[in-house]
Amino acid sequence: MRNAAAVDELATLLGNRLSRSKSDLDLHGRSESHFPLTPPDAVAYPETAEEVAEIVKICARHGCPVVPWGVGTSLEGHALALTGGVSVDFARMNKVLKVNQEDMDAVVQPGVTREDLNVELRATGLFFSVDPGANATLGGMAMTRASGTTAVRYGTMRDNVLAMEVVLADGRIIRTGTRARKSSAGYDLTGLMVGSEGTLGLVTEMTVKLHGQPEAVSSAVCSFDDMEAAVNAVIATIQMGIPMARIEFVDPAVAAAFNAYAGSTLPETPHLMVEFHGSEQGVAEDAERFREIADDFGATGFEWATQPEDRKALWTMRHNAHFACLASRPGARAIVTDICVPISKLAEAVEETRADVAAASIPGPIVGHVGDGNFHCILLFMEDDPKEHAEAKAIAHRMVERALRLGGTSTGEHGIGAGKLDYMAEEHGEAWDVMGTLKQAMDPQNILNPGKMVKPR
Amino acid sequence: MRNAAAVDELATLLGNRLSRSKSDLDLHGRSESHFPLTPPDAVAYPETAEEVAEIVKICARHGCPVVPWGVGTSLEGHALALTGGVSVDFARMNKVLKVNQEDMDAVVQPGVTREDLNVELRATGLFFSVDPGANATLGGMAMTRASGTTAVRYGTMRDNVLAMEVVLADGRIIRTGTRARKSSAGYDLTGLMVGSEGTLGLVTEMTVKLHGQPEAVSSAVCSFDDMEAAVNAVIATIQMGIPMARIEFVDPAVAAAFNAYAGSTLPETPHLMVEFHGSEQGVAEDAERFREIADDFGATGFEWATQPEDRKALWTMRHNAHFACLASRPGARAIVTDICVPISKLAEAVEETRADVAAASIPGPIVGHVGDGNFHCILLFMEDDPKEHAEAKAIAHRMVERALRLGGTSTGEHGIGAGKLDYMAEEHGEAWDVMGTLKQAMDPQNILNPGKMVKPR
Repeated sequence: MRNAAAVDELATLLGNRLSRSKSDLDLHGRSESHFPLTPPDAVAYPETAEEVAEIVKICARHGCPVVPWGVGTSLEGHALALTGGVSVDFARMNKVLKVNQEDMDAVVQPGVTREDLNVELRATGLFFSVDPGANATLGGMAMTRASGTTAVRYGTMRDNVLAMEVVLADGRIIRTGTRARKSSAGYDLTGLMVGSEGTLGLVTEMTVKLHGQPEAVSSAVCSFDDMEAAVNAVIATIQMGIPMARIEFVDPAVAAAFNAYAGSTLPETPHLMVEFHGSEQGVAEDAERFREIADDFGATGFEWATQPEDRKALWTMRHNAHFACLASRPGARAIVTDICVPISKLAEAVEETRADVAAASIPGPIVGHVGDGNFHCILLFMEDDPKEHAEAKAIAHRMVERALRLGGTSTGEHGIGAGKLDYMAEEHGEAWDVMGTLKQAMDPQNILNPGKMVKPR
Repeated sequence: MRNAAAVDELATLLGNRLSRSKSDLDLHGRSESHFPLTPPDAVAYPETAEEVAEIVKICARHGCPVVPWGVGTSLEGHALALTGGVSVDFARMNKVLKVNQEDMDAVVQPGVTREDLNVELRATGLFFSVDPGANATLGGMAMTRASGTTAVRYGTMRDNVLAMEVVLADGRIIRTGTRARKSSAGYDLTGLMVGSEGTLGLVTEMTVKLHGQPEAVSSAVCSFDDMEAAVNAVIATIQMGIPMARIEFVDPAVAAAFNAYAGSTLPETPHLMVEFHGSEQGVAEDAERFREIADDFGATGFEWATQPEDRKALWTMRHNAHFACLASRPGARAIVTDICVPISKLAEAVEETRADVAAASIPGPIVGHVGDGNFHCILLFMEDDPKEHAEAKAIAHRMVERALRLGGTSTGEHGIGAGKLDYMAEEHGEAWDVMGTLKQAMDPQNILNPGKMVKPR
């Protein structure tokens, strides 16, 4: 009712940039995850921050939910309109507004995808580093505090967003942060917005850090007898201060899936995939030192990829891990878990998870951003088999319990969305109430992505 | 009145760990800055988080201000009890609780100083990187979002605090963050607390990141014909991706002050002081590449310091810049400014500031963390000369205006305290109101460090 009145007003404001077509509603009611379809009442396609502010004001007047939408690659249903309302799709706000080469930053609209930005940057010698695998929008990545394979060297979205323009729940437009690289001027509102999943405001512009394209890059894959040896090699490498740009773990099941999917010939053992960025000489030295450490932990089958095409093949294989795993069990759907623990607990967390999966009737290959202590188990279940689905959910649940017991977090990079809300109380204790206090203060009507992040009111 | 009642109750709770001696009150009413004496009504010396919570609860009941205190090294009067109340001195909460070598983190109480922590870490091969010059407490450094010479490589306090235990305005104790290196689980409360200057809560425990002591270190100083050449050399070095651990600018007046104070023989021209951390070979290569770039911009008089004692002499000189400048004008006091701008605007900001100082009757030597775009002008005035004091304040004011005009911030690392509050509206616009909303939500009685950070109520 209240939503319908808001939608009528929005139609007047936006004309044919307000969609109520069934296909559009269904598209925005679904995500790359296992949640039931929850379509919004309408989809708005704003073109400016001022239009976003008008949309929010209209919705605020009617108490109608407002849920931001990037390209729908989130894995925890963050952008689902759980109680209907308006999905604000940033597809038409997809411009790179400015690249400041000397300052190594770019001002972008939230609908720009990371690949689009990197295409625009090609001639500059700079690149945007955060790479969650999917070609997500920068707005969506900021809102989920995304990271990925390069975070160990270049940081997560928390580290790579300098400033934002945000539309608040009452339609005010604010600017947080500046293009200065650091500041001690007041509460870090940019940091508060990053990872807030659209519950505190809608980002309409961002300034992101860029990095210099390395002069030289070297990648390698190598094999270990067991998980623990691989993780200990990682710990030793970090402690030696060898600057890894990526360091990824894949378990024997993923190696097998790669072989089947990409025609590789990896032994079906635990592997590390590493990459070094730097000068020709620096990279060569880093690689040599890594090799010595890995040798100490029994690594074998080193394959170095110094040519761009070889490297591309290696990381395409890694990026396709999700699809390779899905293909290893035709017809299956996946729950992708996402725990992150202190690195000293990583071997234990992975080993316990593997044992848990081994005792189950479903497969669950494991890949991990081991430099950060973050890993994913891809739990493959048949959708028409409720027992399997329950089994997958139970393993995922035990993984979170394990992460929290080991001093870690329920999600390293995928976020809370609709999937992890039940763990917030356990992970944060009273601090979760503080999040509720902040949400109440900034969105007293609870119209911004309601049902997410904080305790339901 | 209300403060007196709170202090009486606190005396019962703390016994002789509540001080009302005049000398103690005066000590806590003063800071390393130019603000008038504002003593608290009492100084509390808690030993546990639970005691801090009790203190806050008693003060909340009476509406009595609570102001946290480290060792009083802040430059903007953050820890001054502007309206009286209780100064909570963390001197007795000064333990390093745990060092997790494998995870490269340490759990500390807020009263530990950065030097104390590094002494404890000596045998581990690890170090704590943030170095604001003064031997501040880690709690104080977190609360002001401190940084210093190594931030360009290892980040500021924002980047180096993983987790916190915090006492809120109602006496609840919460934990923010975990020891996992990254998380997407909810609002970044740790990030919100860092830089909040005691206005949202009192930190009672922190987990901080540590870094591996580099295998090799190389430092150098070199001279340039003009400021712009020095800054352009910095920009080129950053863009080449050469990983500098420190890169500091000093102007001709500082070089002269060094010569007088430390007996150095630097030409009285602009200088860069740089340091590289890494492997023997990597450091040698970085240094060589830097030298080539610097040569392109006309650098002369390179002096390399590869031996520990030479390096120590170099950085002691830099750390003593403040005292060297003070000594250059016997009897003078200083206003230390702290603006930070996008690096492309750095030459312009420094050049305009130098011209402004040159036209004034007081000296104002300039030092800067140029890798971050952050610099300080040390404005030396005679305290008994109101005209000079006014002149210093006017130059400092114009520096902030300049920073904001150039897209920067009023403070790169010193914080707001009592000195920069007047610039918050201009720097943040409506976003400053949002800070007020957050403060109101988390401290509705306004007892935590009142009069700071947000719009006075």
